[in-house]
Amino acid sequence: MTTTIAHLGPQGTYAEVVTLAVARWLEEQGQPSPQLCPYNSIARTLYAVEDGETMLAVVPIENSTDGSVRETLDTLWQLGDIQIQQAWTLPITHALISHAETKETITTVYSHPQALAQCQDWLQLYLPHAKRMPTPSTENAIDHLKQDPGAAAIASRRAADLYKLPILAYPINDRPDNCTRFWVISQVGFAYPDHTAEGLPLFTHTSLAFSLPKNCPGVLMTALQIFADRNINLGRIESRPTKRVMGEYLFFIDVEKGPSDPAMQDALSQLKQCTETLKVFGQYRILQAEEGT
Amino acid sequence: MTTTIAHLGPQGTYAEVVTLAVARWLEEQGQPSPQLCPYNSIARTLYAVEDGETMLAVVPIENSTDGSVRETLDTLWQLGDIQIQQAWTLPITHALISHAETKETITTVYSHPQALAQCQDWLQLYLPHAKRMPTPSTENAIDHLKQDPGAAAIASRRAADLYKLPILAYPINDRPDNCTRFWVISQVGFAYPDHTAEGLPLFTHTSLAFSLPKNCPGVLMTALQIFADRNINLGRIESRPTKRVMGEYLFFIDVEKGPSDPAMQDALSQLKQCTETLKVFGQYRILQAEEGT
Repeated sequence: MTTTIAHLGPQGTYAEVVTLAVARWLEEQGQPSPQLCPYNSIARTLYAVEDGETMLAVVPIENSTDGSVRETLDTLWQLGDIQIQQAWTLPITHALISHAETKETITTVYSHPQALAQCQDWLQLYLPHAKRMPTPSTENAIDHLKQDPGAAAIASRRAADLYKLPILAYPINDRPDNCTRFWVISQVGFAYPDHTAEGLPLFTHTSLAFSLPKNCPGVLMTALQIFADRNINLGRIESRPTKRVMGEYLFFIDVEKGPSDPAMQDALSQLKQCTETLKVFGQYRILQAEEGT
Repeated sequence: MTTTIAHLGPQGTYAEVVTLAVARWLEEQGQPSPQLCPYNSIARTLYAVEDGETMLAVVPIENSTDGSVRETLDTLWQLGDIQIQQAWTLPITHALISHAETKETITTVYSHPQALAQCQDWLQLYLPHAKRMPTPSTENAIDHLKQDPGAAAIASRRAADLYKLPILAYPINDRPDNCTRFWVISQVGFAYPDHTAEGLPLFTHTSLAFSLPKNCPGVLMTALQIFADRNINLGRIESRPTKRVMGEYLFFIDVEKGPSDPAMQDALSQLKQCTETLKVFGQYRILQAEEGT
């Protein structure tokens, strides 16, 4: 049966670039060529897996310049039985795409808010007077080029090639080592090669989230202490509002250990006792994707 | 001398509503009527204080549904000698503003990404087929109403009144207790009434941020343990990328104690020793603003 993979579309998004890398990796494991299924939002991409529309989803979780992707965190917390199977890191280099003859005639720059944020120093230096307009995706930014000769879009070189559009400047991201991490997600129990084949490296990361019982000051420290006592290193900690009242949070944590490790097993059973709701999203290793061209 | 206050403009933003409340409060303390100075981004609003263009700035820091305002955190970290003087919490109720006769004819909903996020369940229920388009501010969303009869904007009732536009639905925020917290910020040493007059309540909160020395696993726990050992409660913890390499973070922490408290003094001097850079943004109390009409 063909593996189906949901991702943020349309053609030319960075999510598509990393999904193509995941598809090639699956073929190398002896699987038939997967089918890519673009969706118009990250939330819809994740619900595609929960609803059984696709077998896998590839979603961005974190960028090295702009931080966590909140839509991914908030949607994951609402989903039922899903599992992270793998993480992929993709180097991200942005291009300035425009029909304008020179940079000086550009009046508006369109792109996804995270792409605008990743190029803000460059924009401040080279296009200080251009208006910055956020769009739902980097590809959506390209739609504006047709209507407005003073418009520029920030997107991938791949997008410029796909839509046969001129690149005015490349690369324009403020950090040369700008990269985004994606998760490959499935329903619980899906036979993903990384979790079923033998002889593969051990999983190095576990991602989880929890809410805390109300009116218990200090309980966050109690929860974090459980990892410290077992010498388990916290890679990342991110708070998100519970959306109930101001000042009440969920905590998303990446731990640098797989959950099958005995110390981790013990930590998770302790954690269950001091949290209100605990969700373990999965264990995984991190692979490196090559930048799409 | 007239007090000048920078805020995110133009007229009708929620930032303006809370800035008007701050202005009224300053008048009640016997100060002359302050002058409001709108800026077109949160970063510009904060730099206005650092550059001495205005005496104060009012910036959003956190919404109860959508979480921290990253532009505020990231800009504060880059600024030099600034000080939080006060916090204000503003209840936020959104209106759907449009020239359309009925909801059924609306094809696109424009608003600031945080406002769209705060109304996403309502939009999913009542306008599932309408496209959602992010804009730089809630007021900018209103500009789109002129050009497109199928457009709707999410903004405050105050904005609808100011620009004499029809409200199609109100309130449309998913959480009735939706609110946003703002900080009043000045240069260090500014004589703000809350910090100089006598007989005022004690400051209840301290906000700070720190980066950690590289390659020291477990040092985040060491830092947090300093507060736990002194029974100082952490209100919020938020990580932001250092923007250097993936996996390196700054930590923004709200502590429920003023820094002049002896336990807090001791904690801060310990914290200085285990962090790379430590910035204490200020101590303050939280006031309640009334929703603008």
